[in-house]
Amino acid sequence: MTAIPNRIGSIDQDVFKQLESEVRSYCRSFDTVFAKAKGARLWDKKGREYIDFFAGAGALNYGHNNERIRSRIVDYMMNDGITHSLDMATEAKERFLLTFQHKILKPRGLSYKLMFPGPTGTNSVESALKIARKVTGRTNVIAFTNAFHGMSLGSLAATGNAYKRGGAGVSLSGTTFLPYDGYMGPLFDTSLLMEKMLNDAGSGVDKPAAVIVETMQGEGGLNAASAKWLQRLESLCREHEMLLIVDDVQMGCGRTGTFFSFEEAGIRPDIVCLSKSIGGYGLPMALTLIKPEYDIWNPGEHNGTFRGNNLGFVAATEAIAFWEDGTLELRIKEHSFSIRKFLERTAARYGGKIKEVRGKGMIQGLVFNNPDDAGQLCRKAFERGVIMETSGSRDEVAKLMPPLTIEKELLAEGMAKLEASLSEMYDFAEQKEPVGIHP
Amino acid sequence: MTAIPNRIGSIDQDVFKQLESEVRSYCRSFDTVFAKAKGARLWDKKGREYIDFFAGAGALNYGHNNERIRSRIVDYMMNDGITHSLDMATEAKERFLLTFQHKILKPRGLSYKLMFPGPTGTNSVESALKIARKVTGRTNVIAFTNAFHGMSLGSLAATGNAYKRGGAGVSLSGTTFLPYDGYMGPLFDTSLLMEKMLNDAGSGVDKPAAVIVETMQGEGGLNAASAKWLQRLESLCREHEMLLIVDDVQMGCGRTGTFFSFEEAGIRPDIVCLSKSIGGYGLPMALTLIKPEYDIWNPGEHNGTFRGNNLGFVAATEAIAFWEDGTLELRIKEHSFSIRKFLERTAARYGGKIKEVRGKGMIQGLVFNNPDDAGQLCRKAFERGVIMETSGSRDEVAKLMPPLTIEKELLAEGMAKLEASLSEMYDFAEQKEPVGIHP
Amino acid sequence: MTAIPNRIGSIDQDVFKQLESEVRSYCRSFDTVFAKAKGARLWDKKGREYIDFFAGAGALNYGHNNERIRSRIVDYMMNDGITHSLDMATEAKERFLLTFQHKILKPRGLSYKLMFPGPTGTNSVESALKIARKVTGRTNVIAFTNAFHGMSLGSLAATGNAYKRGGAGVSLSGTTFLPYDGYMGPLFDTSLLMEKMLNDAGSGVDKPAAVIVETMQGEGGLNAASAKWLQRLESLCREHEMLLIVDDVQMGCGRTGTFFSFEEAGIRPDIVCLSKSIGGYGLPMALTLIKPEYDIWNPGEHNGTFRGNNLGFVAATEAIAFWEDGTLELRIKEHSFSIRKFLERTAARYGGKIKEVRGKGMIQGLVFNNPDDAGQLCRKAFERGVIMETSGSRDEVAKLMPPLTIEKELLAEGMAKLEASLSEMYDFAEQKEPVGIHP
Amino acid sequence: MTAIPNRIGSIDQDVFKQLESEVRSYCRSFDTVFAKAKGARLWDKKGREYIDFFAGAGALNYGHNNERIRSRIVDYMMNDGITHSLDMATEAKERFLLTFQHKILKPRGLSYKLMFPGPTGTNSVESALKIARKVTGRTNVIAFTNAFHGMSLGSLAATGNAYKRGGAGVSLSGTTFLPYDGYMGPLFDTSLLMEKMLNDAGSGVDKPAAVIVETMQGEGGLNAASAKWLQRLESLCREHEMLLIVDDVQMGCGRTGTFFSFEEAGIRPDIVCLSKSIGGYGLPMALTLIKPEYDIWNPGEHNGTFRGNNLGFVAATEAIAFWEDGTLELRIKEHSFSIRKFLERTAARYGGKIKEVRGKGMIQGLVFNNPDDAGQLCRKAFERGVIMETSGSRDEVAKLMPPLTIEKELLAEGMAKLEASLSEMYDFAEQKEPVGIHP
Repeated sequence: MTAIPNRIGSIDQDVFKQLESEVRSYCRSFDTVFAKAKGARLWDKKGREYIDFFAGAGALNYGHNNERIRSRIVDYMMNDGITHSLDMATEAKERFLLTFQHKILKPRGLSYKLMFPGPTGTNSVESALKIARKVTGRTNVIAFTNAFHGMSLGSLAATGNAYKRGGAGVSLSGTTFLPYDGYMGPLFDTSLLMEKMLNDAGSGVDKPAAVIVETMQGEGGLNAASAKWLQRLESLCREHEMLLIVDDVQMGCGRTGTFFSFEEAGIRPDIVCLSKSIGGYGLPMALTLIKPEYDIWNPGEHNGTFRGNNLGFVAATEAIAFWEDGTLELRIKEHSFSIRKFLERTAARYGGKIKEVRGKGMIQGLVFNNPDDAGQLCRKAFERGVIMETSGSRDEVAKLMPPLTIEKELLAEGMAKLEASLSEMYDFAEQKEPVGIHP
Repeated sequence: MTAIPNRIGSIDQDVFKQLESEVRSYCRSFDTVFAKAKGARLWDKKGREYIDFFAGAGALNYGHNNERIRSRIVDYMMNDGITHSLDMATEAKERFLLTFQHKILKPRGLSYKLMFPGPTGTNSVESALKIARKVTGRTNVIAFTNAFHGMSLGSLAATGNAYKRGGAGVSLSGTTFLPYDGYMGPLFDTSLLMEKMLNDAGSGVDKPAAVIVETMQGEGGLNAASAKWLQRLESLCREHEMLLIVDDVQMGCGRTGTFFSFEEAGIRPDIVCLSKSIGGYGLPMALTLIKPEYDIWNPGEHNGTFRGNNLGFVAATEAIAFWEDGTLELRIKEHSFSIRKFLERTAARYGGKIKEVRGKGMIQGLVFNNPDDAGQLCRKAFERGVIMETSGSRDEVAKLMPPLTIEKELLAEGMAKLEASLSEMYDFAEQKEPVGIHP
Repeated sequence: MTAIPNRIGSIDQDVFKQLESEVRSYCRSFDTVFAKAKGARLWDKKGREYIDFFAGAGALNYGHNNERIRSRIVDYMMNDGITHSLDMATEAKERFLLTFQHKILKPRGLSYKLMFPGPTGTNSVESALKIARKVTGRTNVIAFTNAFHGMSLGSLAATGNAYKRGGAGVSLSGTTFLPYDGYMGPLFDTSLLMEKMLNDAGSGVDKPAAVIVETMQGEGGLNAASAKWLQRLESLCREHEMLLIVDDVQMGCGRTGTFFSFEEAGIRPDIVCLSKSIGGYGLPMALTLIKPEYDIWNPGEHNGTFRGNNLGFVAATEAIAFWEDGTLELRIKEHSFSIRKFLERTAARYGGKIKEVRGKGMIQGLVFNNPDDAGQLCRKAFERGVIMETSGSRDEVAKLMPPLTIEKELLAEGMAKLEASLSEMYDFAEQKEPVGIHP
Repeated sequence: MTAIPNRIGSIDQDVFKQLESEVRSYCRSFDTVFAKAKGARLWDKKGREYIDFFAGAGALNYGHNNERIRSRIVDYMMNDGITHSLDMATEAKERFLLTFQHKILKPRGLSYKLMFPGPTGTNSVESALKIARKVTGRTNVIAFTNAFHGMSLGSLAATGNAYKRGGAGVSLSGTTFLPYDGYMGPLFDTSLLMEKMLNDAGSGVDKPAAVIVETMQGEGGLNAASAKWLQRLESLCREHEMLLIVDDVQMGCGRTGTFFSFEEAGIRPDIVCLSKSIGGYGLPMALTLIKPEYDIWNPGEHNGTFRGNNLGFVAATEAIAFWEDGTLELRIKEHSFSIRKFLERTAARYGGKIKEVRGKGMIQGLVFNNPDDAGQLCRKAFERGVIMETSGSRDEVAKLMPPLTIEKELLAEGMAKLEASLSEMYDFAEQKEPVGIHP
């Protein structure tokens, strides 16, 4: 047996470059090898510390290695609790079902059956589209410009991004893309076009099984739909007997300020897709919530080997405790406010460079006039020890999405580093330029 | 906040019936609530013990709560190791990459880049189909009768089962189904039809990007392809510049006797899909192995939130140690032999009821003339404390797939229980029949 | 051999009801059996005369049994001219090619290669879409709300009407429907949405091979696109390297006032589809005009048995003579003007019932507030001896489209009959109502 | 107005090369310009005579300019009969309906409703597939290797030829291709594979709406299905409630010896597609015959501008008279026999070059070992004044399909010319070779 070369310990990514596929992406932006993490902090092999303003793209809302959750998982494991069970009934799952029912759904007056698809967001979306098509007997689904719903073919067909769609290698069909709220500017209510096309038997839009929507588009560039627009969607869905699917994979579990991102708009989706932070500890898990009257699945009609990730159930059950009193909501509110203030101040300062502030809750960002600047900010922030990413179809938005549980001081420290990065980009550059003797 | 009703402790599935979707399936066959598991044993809430002849459909090849693996995971967690990292570089991933390279690929003379798609088999298949289509610029893919490749739309299009396909709610396209090895009986070599159709520009089979094949069809009824037939596939792939994809999600990681199921046939697939037991401990994880020359992904062209399940990397790294010396292979060989002997003896005894013995390695089963009998055997076995399932398009096969690491005595005990179940079904019934006064 | 029952002579449609498929449609509106026709007049078996305000939906622009054309056809036939030749070269075809080149294309400064697909509009559209996809290597095509392009699956995918699409029995894909000019009212320029979606890599609109457009939508309800909007389409096509396809099947050959309907807008489509009146005499024939640089067909890559209907060539060649001096254009202009005047007067008179006048050239109509009224007008007109039809997705438009060659007096007579019909519908009814003693 | 250059009179194809699309095909094989035709003879501009062994690919079964039919058409025209009527009821159509009912259907004990789709074969196929999908509510359709059903997307999806499919520019879906009778040689009954796949819920073949089949594949290379195999298809259709569609576009109207090609096999298709020679005189016309119980179309659910080509009705009505007594059938029988004898003698003589004789009735041909030889024979025959074409996916078959009405002497003359051509190719070449002093 060949010995493994002792690469462990070095900080560069040679091993990844040699052995991992070219498809890897985030590791290209963050060129180090991470070793440890706690709360909103990460450390690389050399011990360098980073503030996490990315939070696993929303999978780490409760931070890294949360101790309360961890102790539950470890106890469970040490007690020979069941890790993998397909969809057999286990104590861990039972506890999660009850907790979710009584601590999340009931207090919000919501009534859903819980489906456990494969443990990823895309699987939840695939299952949502399937059941919507089954319920209605229709095939078409309305999705929106700049939507992101996942990478397997069913979900990808509802995803707007040309780069990602191009990867399919086949034509993606079964979806009609309509303009998201605000797509044509503030003066044109895009729901009117949808209404007209649905009411017009000549529009070429085949009667849809469902509308799938993110209340705020994360990957799409932090575009937030107004409550009014979401309510219009809901009423169009009722009128045309389409199911309303809210993809809350990224915005759910508190990211925008409430457990479900649609609570504020007061709508009642027929189906809700959850994943990312539902696993509580960064563990793969996904949920599809289905109104009981639409839960017409036959047994096993959609399945998957890891639909029962019991460690995820254990972690999720504990994570839900965060929502029992109002403490977390309050903290999100305060954090959101300070992020907003910071971003608006920044946008005002660099008015010529920054187009606007977008987003809400603990996912907000700056839209740059020059998309490259968003990437540059992320790179400079990384040099200063902050991990953050861009979004938008031109990667023009630099976004802040720390764990919801981040400490106030650490959040402030991270924002200060962003401020310094921007200053380096613009103030320093501006000063230098007149001085420099460039060709 | 409403208190959670104290259901925990009761053994029935009321909670699941009320709160979980109708899509649940296995829990319907095994009507109890499981609480603990160790090795090849499970216990339900009441403390009743079961022998596991199902092994998470292949996700628990090393058994439940393997202590060596568990201690690695717990250590890693307690040391604030990184749980979730999207595809950022981590120590845990680096260690896995090196281990897989040096302990799995190199000794077998294989050269692949490793891609981490979402952590499920279907995601690996989706990524395999995408890259094959990208490499070749073609869209069609050849799949086989009774193939199972997953439930998201891309994979489902390559899955033969009408019930599962029907769940899509849309037409599934982009695949041509051809007869698997032995489909028309032993006298007709089905690869000849494939060859003819590929060579005939009038066959209506659009030039394929790839052939996707399981070396043995698990869900499809334990149909095993011969080495010769697989070699024919490989050479047709070379001739027509199609990629050969082996879906080793269920048969890989040792299930058939070698780490990869295709080792015996001596073929070199262009792409290999792994999942289930690669996560080592029942943890969600998937791998797509791609020949370096076909690794032409652009960064992030296929991605997913949980493509970096670090606990899975930690577990997988330790699990690979099982393959360092020949101990496990030897054990599988012995177990396989005793399972075979048992099944053949059984088939001989109930010749009128049992059509044949199918499968190999540690996934073998009995094909019943009357499909209902396969289900009945599983039910009776469950009553006696053995967990096993059916497969095949008519659920006509009762299959044994215990953890590879099962103890010899436990395996024997489980088989004895099957013997008793069959005897109850047939001998007892047979005895009774002459007594009865049927109309 | 059974004798044929002597049904010939009776005027009812019993034979059709018994022997012809339920799919028949226009014969349901016009419940008689027609026997003869000349110019803009038809007669049924009983000798009853009808004025033709329908003109074969645009296939009879030069009227029925035009004597000049007829004499050419009969001479050709009696001289053993070739009727059917697949796409072999014939004198008749050569003459048509030269005539079309020198009398239609050259004087308008247009340069196209002529393709003869099967002899119907839908075949021309199918061929146009194929070549556009081949030229660009893309698959998506932009079509517009309320477009009608034909009934075979390729064309039907670009047709908006839900009833017709529903007949496909399969999902129609490969097209994106965007709002036609004026779809959202006069204040919203729908080309802006198209522009935005094309420029936005996140819009979900896959880069199109082509835009297919009718300059005026006949079946869709006489919606006419403005010159400015068409010019915007053309420039978006140039910018995004999409081909501009004008489907001139119904509006071409003079219906809107010029030979091609797009002449006024001054655009240069990359592909033009012609059929209906190109056959000159109601004979099946279709043409696909392709800019020479895009004529990259391989031989026989699109074909069809009747792509060489030589009687159609003979008739078409003679029909083109109508376009040699300005006489026909002038007549169309005069007719159009008097139709407009009549319709506007009518619309003014029945303001509460009629929403607006639509269309241009010799295809204009009345849009009724109550769609049923459009159908009622057609029925009443038929009773008075005028043949006309409705269009629009709710059949809300009653349209006038007589042969371009109709005599001034006959046109006036037909319009007078319409006036009487409307008067019967509204004035008489209105008068009666106060008198009636309804509950 | 530009004068037309005086090209008329020259025999070369310059005009076509300059003005017609590159898609033209047959005119490339037959490099002249045809001017007149009568019976089974054509003449080009220079007056050179050709014997027609191609018959418009089956559209001229009654020969060119048949005088009986012509006089009917001309009389009808001169009498101001209606040429174009969409699907309005006309005397000409009524007469055709009655004639077809009483002279074709009734004597054969067949009961069908008649649908007039657009006037081409592909339109008939499109309509057949639509109604089959509507009747069954299923989407998949079984088609066969080397099938040809047309070039619009619906029909093309059921066409096997890769070159033609490639022209679509989109993925063609909704069809499953299975091996035609004899595809795997005489020892393997391909209907067994179909049976197995239909009965196996895991085969990946979605339950089909219909099976579409040619009783003999013309374009596919003159492969004739046996009566037994067709009967098996029929019974599988009954068993699985699929509709049996016979595409009789090329083989119908007497080509194989009986009016419908399926008469001999004694099957009762649910739908029959007719076109080509149904128009009697080479005029565009198509028919879809539908069993009354499946005629569930809604009005206008499938339509087309030229679905009522009245000159076609007039010609067809007269053409049917050929089938009133047995004269034509007898002639076909005699001709078929002499063609067979000739081909078999020829095949025997050039055993090393010619693989076999294929086809039946008046469409038979020689399969060459070297596909180029088939093309060479056609070229040499053309030099000698015989028009014939190749078929098969490698163009390996040289086929004879003269008008059914060809005179005995002319048929013999044509065959003599073929004999001379073959002799030139093989005998002369063989002799010369030893003599020549080639490098």
